[in-house]
Amino acid sequence: MKTLEVSLGDRSYPIYIGAGLLASDHVGRHVRAGQAMVVSNETVAPLYLETLRNALDVRQLDEVILPDGEQYKDLATLERVFDALMAKRHSRTTTVIALGGGVIGDMAGFAAACYQRGVAFIQVPTTLLAQVDSSVGGKTAVNHPRGKNMIGAFWQPQAVIIDTDVLATLPPREYAAGVAEVIKYGLINDAPFFQWLADNIDALMAREPGVLAEAIERSCRDKAAVVAADETEQGSRALLNLGHTFGHAIETSQGYGSWLHGEAVACGMVMAADFSVRLGWMPRADADRARTLLQAAGLPVTPPDAMTAGEFLRHMAVDKKVLDGQLRLVLMKGIGEALVSADFPAQALSDWLAATCGE
Amino acid sequence: MKTLEVSLGDRSYPIYIGAGLLASDHVGRHVRAGQAMVVSNETVAPLYLETLRNALDVRQLDEVILPDGEQYKDLATLERVFDALMAKRHSRTTTVIALGGGVIGDMAGFAAACYQRGVAFIQVPTTLLAQVDSSVGGKTAVNHPRGKNMIGAFWQPQAVIIDTDVLATLPPREYAAGVAEVIKYGLINDAPFFQWLADNIDALMAREPGVLAEAIERSCRDKAAVVAADETEQGSRALLNLGHTFGHAIETSQGYGSWLHGEAVACGMVMAADFSVRLGWMPRADADRARTLLQAAGLPVTPPDAMTAGEFLRHMAVDKKVLDGQLRLVLMKGIGEALVSADFPAQALSDWLAATCGE
Repeated sequence: MKTLEVSLGDRSYPIYIGAGLLASDHVGRHVRAGQAMVVSNETVAPLYLETLRNALDVRQLDEVILPDGEQYKDLATLERVFDALMAKRHSRTTTVIALGGGVIGDMAGFAAACYQRGVAFIQVPTTLLAQVDSSVGGKTAVNHPRGKNMIGAFWQPQAVIIDTDVLATLPPREYAAGVAEVIKYGLINDAPFFQWLADNIDALMAREPGVLAEAIERSCRDKAAVVAADETEQGSRALLNLGHTFGHAIETSQGYGSWLHGEAVACGMVMAADFSVRLGWMPRADADRARTLLQAAGLPVTPPDAMTAGEFLRHMAVDKKVLDGQLRLVLMKGIGEALVSADFPAQALSDWLAATCGE
Repeated sequence: MKTLEVSLGDRSYPIYIGAGLLASDHVGRHVRAGQAMVVSNETVAPLYLETLRNALDVRQLDEVILPDGEQYKDLATLERVFDALMAKRHSRTTTVIALGGGVIGDMAGFAAACYQRGVAFIQVPTTLLAQVDSSVGGKTAVNHPRGKNMIGAFWQPQAVIIDTDVLATLPPREYAAGVAEVIKYGLINDAPFFQWLADNIDALMAREPGVLAEAIERSCRDKAAVVAADETEQGSRALLNLGHTFGHAIETSQGYGSWLHGEAVACGMVMAADFSVRLGWMPRADADRARTLLQAAGLPVTPPDAMTAGEFLRHMAVDKKVLDGQLRLVLMKGIGEALVSADFPAQALSDWLAATCGE
């Protein structure tokens, strides 16, 4: 088992990575008082809830099982978590445990942030995407009909428990979506990791345990470093949004749940790379390497056929990366050299989108 | 004009108190970027929104007008604020301005805490209760059908602008409800202020400007000191909840909006005092002084006729002051000597409630 630390002063917490952790005492040791509420969904609960329950020795252990899917990541579904906490009389010292993928982690974390103005929570991510990305760093949110993750909070967990065994049951498409975020760390600021991924992509896609564990650990380490440097995204943390502005536009326009988040991010990263090439900032060869690796992971690298430049721009204009009307994008100078920039002509973006997607 | 400071490190902020501040530049100087969203209600907006708009020089100034009343302090109404922010494409640098009483301040503040994971906000309280209590200290929330203020956040404003002129239009019942919270500060830890209030209660109820301004200033100063010592209510801040556990039970059982919050707190403080006397902790004469002053302010000092001991206990059991099933109450040793305690027999509470309210 590996233990990493996310260094955030008095909000620091450990990430445990290893096989079989769900059945160990790692979750239970971070439940501070006698109450806990497991938040899970209809897909994950039948697989792993029993194992978790058996490993926990808590006076009052309740659960709320939500429908599965990004389309339920909304305020109405969030209310079901509050309803369960209230109905079972959970106090300010309760602990919310997120058992599931990114949607469950985001919703359980946001519920924990708001319930009685904030209670403890623990992340037990069961998808690769959640393990390497959303469970680490304290971003929680639900979607608004007009935009993704628009309503949320920064709320750090007490601990993140990553059991690599649970990935065995993950459907291939969801697994690939997680690999998109793994590749993202290489693209942002870790060229050696990118190269290692390029060398090991077949083993990674075959879920070879050693390669998988190393990929998760390096991803979490890269993410923890970025989060520690800029917890509430005043600056450099925005690099983690590589591919997300284009990606959110795809997700929003297609309806949540149609494209998986990681798929949209994969395509968004290719778009960010291509636009960086068009601006003359990044060598064509680097963009090609990024595209090739993402394709090797079975990820989509072209936007939906029917999506026009106008649609992209409309959805991108409400992205959180817009500061006072000036669109900022995460772009690239090369593999491992991402940057946040608004220093490009708006016209260049719309021209390039029109040429790529049609008007 | 008076300026107080709430000392919270890098979240410190000023409270301005004076006549005519709504028409001054005090609000505008705390709007950091070009966008602002005023959140107000149907009662307050017709009276003061135009004045505020005229005083603000902001590139994009939008507004969302909510229905008036505690019964609308819920997630569904909160969504209207998010909808307005999204529809008008407000970015992460926007500022939410709460123009209204405690309900508006709580909802606008919570919306600001959650929108894009947190944007700036400014409190412009227009009721006495909001001016002396809810606008200061960063507590924001909406109600859950099963309990008051159960969903919320600690989110500090950039500034609190208290225009004493706006109290001229406040209905007498709401004004008295605010006086309940003023008296609370005397009861908690400021016996000299309690005595000053007893000496000046007629002038205060007549809204004599000098007395009113002093009452607001001393209340804000007392509250700011408590908040600075314990921002997120790990300990001593809970003293501010004097009367609130009994009061919330009254509000919840009667339906939000039937009793005003300050009215319920007034009755709750008398109950806390009476129970403290029953425990032998507080002299009878002090409880009588508290009751007499609250009555002189026109406030209710006995619980609703139809409310039984069982109802009180049921609602109190989900109060946020419950820690792991152990009910903690704010009780009193005397005027200006409140304390948080779970150090009383549960049976004593239920016996006393049964004797007071019937079973």
